[in-house]
Amino acid sequence: MPDQAAVLAANRAFYAVFRRRDFGAMKAIWASRSPLSCIHPGWPPLFGPEDVLGSWQGILSHRETPVIECRDERVVMIGPAQALVVLVEVISGNALAASNVFVREDGEWHIVHHQATPMAEAFVTAGGEAEPEPEPDSGPGRLLH
Amino acid sequence: MPDQAAVLAANRAFYAVFRRRDFGAMKAIWASRSPLSCIHPGWPPLFGPEDVLGSWQGILSHRETPVIECRDERVVMIGPAQALVVLVEVISGNALAASNVFVREDGEWHIVHHQATPMAEAFVTAGGEAEPEPEPDSGPGRLLH
Repeated sequence: MPDQAAVLAANRAFYAVFRRRDFGAMKAIWASRSPLSCIHPGWPPLFGPEDVLGSWQGILSHRETPVIECRDERVVMIGPAQALVVLVEVISGNALAASNVFVREDGEWHIVHHQATPMAEAFVTAGGEAEPEPEPDSGPGRLLH
Repeated sequence: MPDQAAVLAANRAFYAVFRRRDFGAMKAIWASRSPLSCIHPGWPPLFGPEDVLGSWQGILSHRETPVIECRDERVVMIGPAQALVVLVEVISGNALAASNVFVREDGEWHIVHHQATPMAEAFVTAGGEAEPEPEPDSGPGRLLH
């Protein structure tokens, strides 16, 4: 399988285990030898398998499975064994802009970093579609960035 | 200079040009040959030099320079020429958890991806220090992730 397709498959597997709240499978998707980090919406950064996987164990232990859709996934190869996937997550009707960093360990792609940032409602139509061309000055990011 | 120190220096240069609103220098810090992406708080993902650098041109053109501090920078080498920096940005008193991805082009480290996510006030003390050990169930991320 070409690298980009393999990375996209690993990224889809990440959301599939999220959907079915399978912590064992989630653990296997994260890298086992590389340093791990994760930034959940609103949280400070988490580092290392204990804190990162512990956060996912907590998240996946909730009884209600949110509806999770992924849109506009873009895979960027940043090295021969390193890739970045940028996408829009739609979770229970909330849109988040997300990045996932993958590395290849023993021929398989594993996630080493995840970050999700809630998108402002102004950028999401009633149908949840992201608008393509916001004006830099009009976004909520203007205040912070 | 060892790679980690060189990446940290590139990351600090990124915030230094942000502080002094120097778009020419900001442009030079971004990679010139690798694909670029950027997720500002609240915005949909931006891709490519036109949209990414255009957003920074808009941000840096504001008259008021916010006070920007960086805390807890951690550099992770994810390949021989690829690195991830995770940190807390404190911008005009608001804390954001941020990730910057760097690649080496012609011996120099350049940024290819930036993402910042506002941190919930619950995780920031009056002094702006991130609390080290949030409970996975208590964070605002519980609702979305």
